[in-house]
Amino acid sequence: MKLGRLNHVGVATPSIERSLETYRTLFGAEPHGEPFDLPAQGVRVCFVDAPNSQIELIEPLGADSPIARFLEKNAEGGQHHVCFEAEDIDEARAHFEGKGVRILGPTRIGAHGTPIFFLHPKDMGGVLTEIMETPKH
Amino acid sequence: MKLGRLNHVGVATPSIERSLETYRTLFGAEPHGEPFDLPAQGVRVCFVDAPNSQIELIEPLGADSPIARFLEKNAEGGQHHVCFEAEDIDEARAHFEGKGVRILGPTRIGAHGTPIFFLHPKDMGGVLTEIMETPKH
Repeated sequence: MKLGRLNHVGVATPSIERSLETYRTLFGAEPHGEPFDLPAQGVRVCFVDAPNSQIELIEPLGADSPIARFLEKNAEGGQHHVCFEAEDIDEARAHFEGKGVRILGPTRIGAHGTPIFFLHPKDMGGVLTEIMETPKH
Repeated sequence: MKLGRLNHVGVATPSIERSLETYRTLFGAEPHGEPFDLPAQGVRVCFVDAPNSQIELIEPLGADSPIARFLEKNAEGGQHHVCFEAEDIDEARAHFEGKGVRILGPTRIGAHGTPIFFLHPKDMGGVLTEIMETPKH
């Protein structure tokens, strides 16, 4: 297991549109495609490209959204998670389980269409950490 | 002005040594050089390399450290800031000032030895954002 690419930094926001306006105005950055819903995760997301990585803007989808609680504490939004890539998601999961790291929920399909899971922030120095299988294309 | 490389994600920690042990054990990651002090900023830092970016571990240096307050709220540590590169730090500063973004303090030399400044999180969707001049080497 090696530290993989920093695929993206997840940033919670009460409004993807407002955040896109900020990135557009301040950095001349356009969204990488339209925002889209991930109903299984209770979020709406949109990516913004940096030359070497991405920012994932995350807006609550529904009142039960896991992002809703984050925004109660951080009304304007803020850094929510970091995401590192792994070559093989099952190997990665077995590796972290073997190290005794708590994993949040099942492996599931993430915003990039590849399998992902989350490591508990208490086992990662307070940083909610997503592990995402590297896209093959 | 274009969104530059995501140079690093800054992660506050009560103990760089403990965080390095986490990255070593879980990701086989070694520090990029020894931890070092930045007395002017009241922090001790150490970088960990991902293939395309870095994690900057930040520990308080002295009781007045700006990180100390962050750790009061987040005892185990957590995501503190993101850092984007800019080709020319003076142009970047003038650009953001022209957009009415609040800048925190003067332009100063950062952990990579190039000039940096910070944008107020309230003007960046709750994300403390460092702008760093791209190293020329």
